[in-house]
Order: sequence, then C-alpha cells, then structure tokens
Amino acid sequence: MTAMVGIIMGSSSDWETMQHAAETLGRLGIPHEVEIVSAHRTPDKLFAYAEAAEAKGLEVIIAGAGGAAHLPGMTAAKTLIPVLGVPIQTLSLNGLDSLLSIVQMPAGIPVGTLAIGKAGAVNAALLAAAIIGNKHEHYRSALRQYRREQTDTVLEKADPRVKGE
Amino acid sequence: MTAMVGIIMGSSSDWETMQHAAETLGRLGIPHEVEIVSAHRTPDKLFAYAEAAEAKGLEVIIAGAGGAAHLPGMTAAKTLIPVLGVPIQTLSLNGLDSLLSIVQMPAGIPVGTLAIGKAGAVNAALLAAAIIGNKHEHYRSALRQYRREQTDTVLEKADPRVKGE
Amino acid sequence: MTAMVGIIMGSSSDWETMQHAAETLGRLGIPHEVEIVSAHRTPDKLFAYAEAAEAKGLEVIIAGAGGAAHLPGMTAAKTLIPVLGVPIQTLSLNGLDSLLSIVQMPAGIPVGTLAIGKAGAVNAALLAAAIIGNKHEHYRSALRQYRREQTDTVLEKADPRVKGE
Amino acid sequence: MTAMVGIIMGSSSDWETMQHAAETLGRLGIPHEVEIVSAHRTPDKLFAYAEAAEAKGLEVIIAGAGGAAHLPGMTAAKTLIPVLGVPIQTLSLNGLDSLLSIVQMPAGIPVGTLAIGKAGAVNAALLAAAIIGNKHEHYRSALRQYRREQTDTVLEKADPRVKGE
Amino acid sequence: MTAMVGIIMGSSSDWETMQHAAETLGRLGIPHEVEIVSAHRTPDKLFAYAEAAEAKGLEVIIAGAGGAAHLPGMTAAKTLIPVLGVPIQTLSLNGLDSLLSIVQMPAGIPVGTLAIGKAGAVNAALLAAAIIGNKHEHYRSALRQYRREQTDTVLEKADPRVKGE
Amino acid sequence: MTAMVGIIMGSSSDWETMQHAAETLGRLGIPHEVEIVSAHRTPDKLFAYAEAAEAKGLEVIIAGAGGAAHLPGMTAAKTLIPVLGVPIQTLSLNGLDSLLSIVQMPAGIPVGTLAIGKAGAVNAALLAAAIIGNKHEHYRSALRQYRREQTDTVLEKADPRVKGE
Amino acid sequence: MTAMVGIIMGSSSDWETMQHAAETLGRLGIPHEVEIVSAHRTPDKLFAYAEAAEAKGLEVIIAGAGGAAHLPGMTAAKTLIPVLGVPIQTLSLNGLDSLLSIVQMPAGIPVGTLAIGKAGAVNAALLAAAIIGNKHEHYRSALRQYRREQTDTVLEKADPRVKGE
Amino acid sequence: MTAMVGIIMGSSSDWETMQHAAETLGRLGIPHEVEIVSAHRTPDKLFAYAEAAEAKGLEVIIAGAGGAAHLPGMTAAKTLIPVLGVPIQTLSLNGLDSLLSIVQMPAGIPVGTLAIGKAGAVNAALLAAAIIGNKHEHYRSALRQYRREQTDTVLEKADPRVKGE
Repeated sequence: MTAMVGIIMGSSSDWETMQHAAETLGRLGIPHEVEIVSAHRTPDKLFAYAEAAEAKGLEVIIAGAGGAAHLPGMTAAKTLIPVLGVPIQTLSLNGLDSLLSIVQMPAGIPVGTLAIGKAGAVNAALLAAAIIGNKHEHYRSALRQYRREQTDTVLEKADPRVKGE
Repeated sequence: MTAMVGIIMGSSSDWETMQHAAETLGRLGIPHEVEIVSAHRTPDKLFAYAEAAEAKGLEVIIAGAGGAAHLPGMTAAKTLIPVLGVPIQTLSLNGLDSLLSIVQMPAGIPVGTLAIGKAGAVNAALLAAAIIGNKHEHYRSALRQYRREQTDTVLEKADPRVKGE
Repeated sequence: MTAMVGIIMGSSSDWETMQHAAETLGRLGIPHEVEIVSAHRTPDKLFAYAEAAEAKGLEVIIAGAGGAAHLPGMTAAKTLIPVLGVPIQTLSLNGLDSLLSIVQMPAGIPVGTLAIGKAGAVNAALLAAAIIGNKHEHYRSALRQYRREQTDTVLEKADPRVKGE
Repeated sequence: MTAMVGIIMGSSSDWETMQHAAETLGRLGIPHEVEIVSAHRTPDKLFAYAEAAEAKGLEVIIAGAGGAAHLPGMTAAKTLIPVLGVPIQTLSLNGLDSLLSIVQMPAGIPVGTLAIGKAGAVNAALLAAAIIGNKHEHYRSALRQYRREQTDTVLEKADPRVKGE
Repeated sequence: MTAMVGIIMGSSSDWETMQHAAETLGRLGIPHEVEIVSAHRTPDKLFAYAEAAEAKGLEVIIAGAGGAAHLPGMTAAKTLIPVLGVPIQTLSLNGLDSLLSIVQMPAGIPVGTLAIGKAGAVNAALLAAAIIGNKHEHYRSALRQYRREQTDTVLEKADPRVKGE
Repeated sequence: MTAMVGIIMGSSSDWETMQHAAETLGRLGIPHEVEIVSAHRTPDKLFAYAEAAEAKGLEVIIAGAGGAAHLPGMTAAKTLIPVLGVPIQTLSLNGLDSLLSIVQMPAGIPVGTLAIGKAGAVNAALLAAAIIGNKHEHYRSALRQYRREQTDTVLEKADPRVKGE
Repeated sequence: MTAMVGIIMGSSSDWETMQHAAETLGRLGIPHEVEIVSAHRTPDKLFAYAEAAEAKGLEVIIAGAGGAAHLPGMTAAKTLIPVLGVPIQTLSLNGLDSLLSIVQMPAGIPVGTLAIGKAGAVNAALLAAAIIGNKHEHYRSALRQYRREQTDTVLEKADPRVKGE
Repeated sequence: MTAMVGIIMGSSSDWETMQHAAETLGRLGIPHEVEIVSAHRTPDKLFAYAEAAEAKGLEVIIAGAGGAAHLPGMTAAKTLIPVLGVPIQTLSLNGLDSLLSIVQMPAGIPVGTLAIGKAGAVNAALLAAAIIGNKHEHYRSALRQYRREQTDTVLEKADPRVKGE
C-alpha cells in the first residue's frame, strides 16, 4: 500500500526514539515508510525526498532530529504537506537544543513540534492520524478507537497502589 | 461560510499575537472563527467548544495561551481533530513557560506546537492550511501561491544594504 | 473515616513520587484517598472528581503531574478548595517543564506549588496538614509534634563525620 | 478586625507587586495586615513575626521576595500556619532566581509557591481565601462569588476583536 | 576585487547585526560580498550559493541567523570552506535559541560559532581575518595592526571615571 | 587549637560534597570545625551559631546547601565575618537552583559564592585560606606552597596520552 | 593612602555597575583604586596587575566582567590574595553567561562570586570590608555601623503603603 | 613533521573528549601536537604557548575546556592564529556553563566555538581542516574525501530497521 506518512530521521541512533512513531502508526493501520535522511550529511537527498513527497502521495512527514536539529525545518522549506518535528533527547542539553532548533521556526515555514523523546514520537503519529482523519474517515475511526481504549486503560487502573498484571 | 479553523485564546490580551493567525488565514481565504476560551476561568466552555468542534465542521483548532498554558492540551484531550498550539510570550519568562507547558504533552494526546509569539501565530495558520490542503486542493493551491510569493519577495530583496521602497 | 485530602496523579508511574505524600499524611494521621486521574486521557473524570471534591468533604487536593502538567491547574479551575501541585521529575527536562506548567498559573486560579519530586510530595502533605490544622486543632498538634521531632533529629546528629546507627 | 492574613515582603519596592495580594484580599473582605520584613536585613524581626503569627490569629502568611528569596522559606521554618510564597520578578534573571529560591524547599518545611509577579500576588490572595474558606464558610462564599464573576466576565467578552467599553 | 568573504543572513532585519561584520572586514581591507539568503524561504538559493562558494574564490562564509537558525549549518553542509555562524538576538528567547541551533551541530559538519549579536558579528569578521591571514600575510598584518590599536585604546583609557573626549 | 573556619551544611547528605572543604583546610593546616546546621529545620541553632561566630574566633564561615539554599545567606545576615557559599548539586535541577539561591543575594548582605559541588567545596577552603592569609602570614605561605605544587603537577603531566602512575 | 582594595573591570561600560562597589567602599572609608583591565584586550596588563597586587598592599581584588567573563578567574590564577567577582548584566543572556563564566571555576583557583549587576557590586564591597575587618578592627567597626543603619532603615519603614519623604 | 594544529586542554580528564579531535586530524593526515595547558593552574605556560604558536608554524589552535572555561579565550587573546573552542560536558550544568564561557566572547577577540562534547571535538578538527585547506590544497582534498565517505555511509544505511554488520 502506498505510504501516507513518511518518517525520516538524521541517524540510525534516532531509531530508538522514532520507532515509537512507526509502532503507533502501525497500530492505527496507517501505511508509512521509514528512512534515514541527514540534513547535514546528505543534504541533496533531503531536498530530493521533500520535493518528491507530495507527488508520491505522502500526506504527512514526521522528522526526528537532535542537537542543532535542521531536518524538520529544511524538509518543511521544500514541501507543502504538513511536517511534524520530534526533538530527540541529547546527551548534553537533554533535548532543549533539539526542541528550540525545531520549534522556533521563523514566520513563513511551519513545523508542528511535539514533545522531546519517546512521547513526542508517539504523539507525532497520533497527530498525523488526526490530520489524515480529516480526509479519510476510516483513520478518524481508528484514532477514535485508540483514544477510547487509552481512556479505558486509565479508568480501569485507578488505584496506583495496586500493581497491574 | 462554515468555519474550517477555530482560533481560540485564553484572554483578550492574547489577540495581539493571535490576530496574525487570523490575518494569515484570511489572506489564504480559509474561513475561520475566533473566540476567547479560558481553560482556567471558563473550563466548561472549553470542554463544550472542543466537544462540538468535529461535528460543526472544524478541521483544525489553533489555540494560543501563555504561562501555565493549558488551553491547547485540554482542547486536544477533548477532540479528535488536529490541535495546534501557539505559546504566547510572557513578561517574566519570555514564553519559555508557555512553550514547555504546550509542547511537553505526555504520550497519548498531541499538540502540534509552533514558535513563541507572532511567528508561531502566522505559522499555525500556514500549518492549518497545509493540513486542510491535503483534503481541499483549492487551499493547497492558495498555500502554493503564498509560498511562491514569499520566496520571490526574498529573492528580489537580495541586498540588505538597499532600503526597500 | 472520610478522606480530608485527595491525592491524584496523572499516571501510575507518578506513584513512586506521590507515595511520599501519602506516607507523610499517614504519619500525621490525616485520612486521605489516592486516585489516578489523567487530565489528558481522562478529562471527564478529572472534571467530575474536582466538582465533587468540596461536597464529599475534601479540604485539600494534592495533584502530582509531569511534563506539560495540566492536572493541578485544571483541578483548581473546577473547585474552590485549595489545590497543591507537585511537579514530577521528568527524563528530558528534569522537571523544569513540570514546575513551570504548574506554577505559572494566570491570575484567577491558584495552585500552591511545591518542589520538584519527592521533597515536593512530602511538603505537599505537610502544607495540607498546616491548612487542615487551621480548622482542626488536633492536626495542628500532630504537625507540631512532627516538626519538633524533625528538629530534634537534626540537632542530635550535629557532626556529619559520625555515621548514623 | 483582627487580621487573618499577613502579607510581608523584603523591601518597599516589592509593594508594586504585593499590593495586588492586598487588593484581592480586600475585594474578598478578608482582614489582613501588611509589613516590610527583610530576611537578610532584619532577620530578628522576621523570626519574631513568624513566631507570633499563630498566637495573634493569622491563618495564612503571604511572603513576597526576589532574587535569593529567603523570606518565605525562613518564615515557614518558624511557624506552623501555611506560608505562601510570591516570587518577585527581578531585573537580571526575570524572577527565575526568585522562583527557584522559594519553591525548591527541602522536605520538612513547605512553601506553597505561586507564579512570578502580579499573577502570583493575586493568586496568593485567592489561595489564602480558599484555605480560610475551609474554616469560615463566609469566605468560601465570597470566593465562590469572585470566581463566578470572573467566569462571567470572560464569557461575556467572547470575541477578542470587539474592544471593551 | 574578488570577494574573499561572503556574508549571508536570513532576512533584512538581520542587517542591523551583520553590518558590524561588514564594517570590520572593511576596516581590515578584506574584500567581501553581502547577500540575503534564507534557509527556509529560499532553500534552493542557499544550496546554489554554498555550492558555488569555493569555485568563485570565497575563503570564508559568515552566516547570521536567528531562532531556529538553520542557515549556517545548511551552508556548511554544502561547502568545504570554513563557515562561521552568528546567532542573532531574538525577542522571546534572547538568542539562546539561535545559539543552540547553530552551535550544537552533530559530528561531521562544523560551524565555528561566535557570540550572540553585535559582538559575534564583529568577531566573525576578526576570525575570518585570522583564517585568511594564514594564507595571505598581508591580512595577518592588518589584523596585527587592528589588535595593537585595540590594546592601545584600552591601555590609554585606564580610569573609567574619566569621561572620554 | 581554636577553629578559624566553621564549615556548616544543611544535612548529613551534604557531607559527601563538603568533606572536600574540610580536607583542603586540613592539608593547609588551618584549624576548623564542622557542624550540621539546617536553616529550615533548626533555624534557632543557625541564628545562635552565626551570632556566636565572631566572638569565638572564627574568621570565615563556609556554608554548603542545596535546592532553596538559605543557609549561607541567613548566616551572613547574622554575622559580620565573611561567609562563603557552596551550592550542593541537586537531583532535579543539577544545582542551578542551589547556585541562584545562594549567589543572587540582595544588596546589603553578601555571600561569596563558589562553584556547584566538589570544586566549589575545595575552592571555598582555598578562598578561606586566602582571606586568613591576609592576617596570618603563615597561612599565606601554606597557600603559596599549595598553589606551587598544583602548578607543578600540571606542568609535569603535559601529555594527556601518557597514563599517570 | 595606600589602596587596600583594587577594583578592576573589562571595559568603561562596566563602570555603571562597578561604581557601586567604589561608592560602598568610600562610604566605609576603605582606601581603594579603580582601573580598566581587559582580560582579552590587555592580557599582559592583567598579568602584571595581578602579580603586583600582593606586594603593593592590596588585600582584596574586586573584578567585574560580562559575557565570557574571564577577568576574575585569570586574576585569581595570578595572585594569592582573595578575588571577588561581579557578573555584569549582559544584553542577550541577562548576565547568566557572566555568572557561570565567573562562578564555575575548577578546583584549585577560587573566585568568590556575588550577584549579577548592581547588588553584586555593592556586596563585593561589603564582603571586601568583612575580609579586611578580620585584620583591621577599624573596618570591622565601620561595617558594623553600616549594617546597623541598614537594619534601622528597614525597621523604620515597616509599612510599604506609606511613601517615604 | 611540524605540527599544523595544536590541541590543548585544561586537564587530563578532558582527553576523553579531545582525543576525538586528535583522531579526526589523524585520519585526515594533518600533523598536530597535544598538550595539557591549564588557564588557571598554569597561566604562564598558557601565555608562552599562545605567544609561540604563530612562529612555530601552528595554523590553528583547538582548545577544550569545561566549567568557567577560560582556556580558549585567553589563548585567543595572545595569538593571531585562529582559535577554536570545544566546550567540555560538565557534571552539574551539562556543559552549558562551558559553552557560554567560551562562545560569549566580547567584540575584539574571537573564538570559533563548536558543540559541547565529542561532536564538538570531531568538528573542531574538521573546521581546522577546512581552514588549513584554504592554503594547502592537499588537505582540502583530504577533507573532500572524508566528507564524501561520510555521505556515502549515510546513503548506504537508509533503513534504520536493518542492523548494520
């Protein structure tokens, strides 16, 4: 099936975080592709990827990057489809550098930024599902189901002193 | 025309920032509505607004808030349509508090966060246009035109030493 | 006995921190209840919990939350009884995000915020005891005894070079 | 009438912020007293003030301080009644220093901390009212009225594009 | 004369800062060119500029950018000549975002980063002069003279209480 | 021998850091005393300690504290002898809270603040030695010797690739 | 009279802050000298100044510097007399850069650091007085008098609502 | 062969980071020397080293330092050849102190600053290579080859889900 979401990241070490985006999309049944694209070490590939995204049917790009994280913003500069950014947690500054490098885009080119690390990767997938759900009712339903189960799980486990099975 | 984007904010003082989202949507011809909804002072209205959003045809909600900014996240907790958050610049901590309160959402409920202040408001509108453009080719074209003009403006003014007319 | 203090938290992983609030209340003999209530994943339960708090006799609510921590502030928006917030330490930003999301409430809805992590959980219980002690002399006495023992412990162990028993 | 709330601050320049606590208490009809007490320049007065607070009928102390803000914490060390801290905004670090100096109390002595600056001063008064309202139904009612009017004001002014009269 | 240093910046508003780089190069007699190149709004021009730099004889590129500052890093990704980055001071985060976005480059593509704002612009020019001076003794001498005068100016004005003429 | 330096700290867990102050004073032969004094849990002892310091012959007080670190500043408020502060590294905010709570004293009461953690403890002892050395030539000589050995150790180990014995 | 305290600063623009150190020493009657010494632009003068300090009778050096503030630490590296550092408030990072550059000295060379800006300059003078007072009873008395007047001033102005004359 | 790059660092513990600069220079075939030079503990050696650098043929100095990191800036104050700074990651503030102490140099004396930690050390070597490559075509070619291999490595490993061999 043609991928609707493209997940890209600057290096293979980012996969530990970004796999949570892929897993969440998988659970929602949203077709997606995964690729390493480095803004700094493979800039031409980044431009080619972003330029081709719309034509090949991607509806959302999720880009994860750490430190001076330029991948989400430069991707957004080269495409009209929505780009979501996931700040990877870094060793020295804990991802504050990644966050500011992604979120503080100047007026003109937006990146929808999620939380630092794993939570951000999961949420990028959920926001992609919400975006896709606007057009494809099937995925809106899948997201509705996901959210309902999520709520039920919390409601069922109301007492933190009881260990779950 | 039915609004496709809802712009909400916690107080009338946020309008100075959020009007840039409205203006940008206006320039792109995207129908939108504007309303003050305070997470803390009108929590019931917030819930009612978010619960009604999908049924009344909103495709994106843009929420601006400052300080302990709970409006975007609580809106996202009550709807399945994409929620974008704009951190309002604050007096004491310059909007770093607003940014972290909006972007650091736990896994499960995403808010696509933009830059602090005016740039974030403009970009929330542009990201909303990109999201809507997935479904409505007309707005994709409007965004394409907006971006092309933006690029041309920069290209034409290549020398910073020459004062613009 | 009817609970006088309600301890709520966003997820079961917060219990590691919040149990120190429960233990301290227990040591002071203050009846309390403990419950997982997620602002983002169970927003309706949060509203129901906060709305019912005053009528069922709670005199203080202690809410622990991490990251974009909306639980304390949204609880405060829905009740008139005092709400105390405990910022949970987070992986990426060490709880600075939790702290700012809780403490920087706009004028109108207050949250009395304690320190990040375990110290904050203990102190939320002690502040709850001080609040309750205004009305119930019995708990003022319990707190007085607690504080006296605390002082004595430090006074007895004046030389840090001597290992405790 | 005997003061129920004591408002103290480190210097007369803090009054610009702390007057908002006094005004809010005044609007709620809560009797209060106001005094300059400097932790660093009048430490003995601070100890005397805190030691006398309970006996003279104070039910809450609100302490505002900036920079290395020791006033709230040292007051709390010398009394059993609840102490609320208001971080004053500072020139160099915008009040982040004040906030951390007040909120990061070690386990054993709590200070319920509010937001930096004016919002924190207003909210300290509202939290004091909530605390006092536990014991004195009259003030609980006054707070209920205050909150209802606050909500109505926001609800009435729903469109930020309309200038208020 | 063929430019030896290229000064680029993301928008005309950056000229207020970057003119200090141009002035300093001018004072040292180093031929240079100035151009607005926006990483986000004119990404293709950025790539073309960086790719052509080495062939047309540039020996250093100085890139100034603010917020999510991607210009220096993306330029460095597309050329082998040294790239120096100047973080522009921003309204909300004072340039801390610009600084981290420029300096925290991953291993593989370096940007030599200078201070935030005007001091950084002056110093980028001086570091460019030091780099060029390695190859062209003439400019090493010009820098030596500049530094000597700078030292003399400080030595002559040893008493801060005497107003300069 | 009568102690010339008093080392105090808020809790026994601070000894891991503060022992480096004691060891350094010991190496320099400066008589000193060590005591746990908690600003928050034993405020009266703190006042008594500080008030007695000058009369019993202390020439410097070194105070270590973490979090909302009030010990150095409150000690300084109650004595005329120089007080040096050592910010203890904390779990959540890494000692930035301790640092700001100690160093940002208002005009009128100074605390000479050293680096966070072990380096700060060592340096507090060395600064105490420098202070004492003004009056007692013997300790100036001891410090001179210490510094000379320190320099020699670095000079001897000039190549980092050679493992020390 | 021979200067007992040397006040140095990196540039004449620092005088606006450092004059408060000079004024405070003047009020206490402590002889002092004032000089511009730049660590970066006049490094040889800095070394000469620091090397000569002890022999010419200085008992304390107060060094003010901003940004990458190297003056206090490098002075301390070249003398055995106590060095106090005053972080000058900076435009971009508000003096946080100055503070960390001064206070975070490695073990071996201490700088007693004061608050950012004017309060730090005043307090550097007061700490210098405390240090000198150890040896010269006359200045201990002057400091005692200064502190007593300071306390009286606060005690007299206990009500912040009364405008001073 | 005569060293073209000098790598200096404040202590042997910095070698863990700085060895990556040496290794990268080695891989590019650039002759270099390595030496421990402490700004604070061996200031005279630092001045001697920097003064001799130009005459002995060094074309770039790479200086690594942590905390109140004065080594790069003081080296730059004493030489005309380009100085690159590597902020060493610190225990308490994660290298933010090192970064600000190095990068925030005042106008007049530049330090080209790289990222905190290992990435910064590698990149300092690569920037040194770019600088040297201006004059020595041989090293420009070596750098070109290095960059090409780096790009190829990323291109070959495009799928993060495939484990490398």
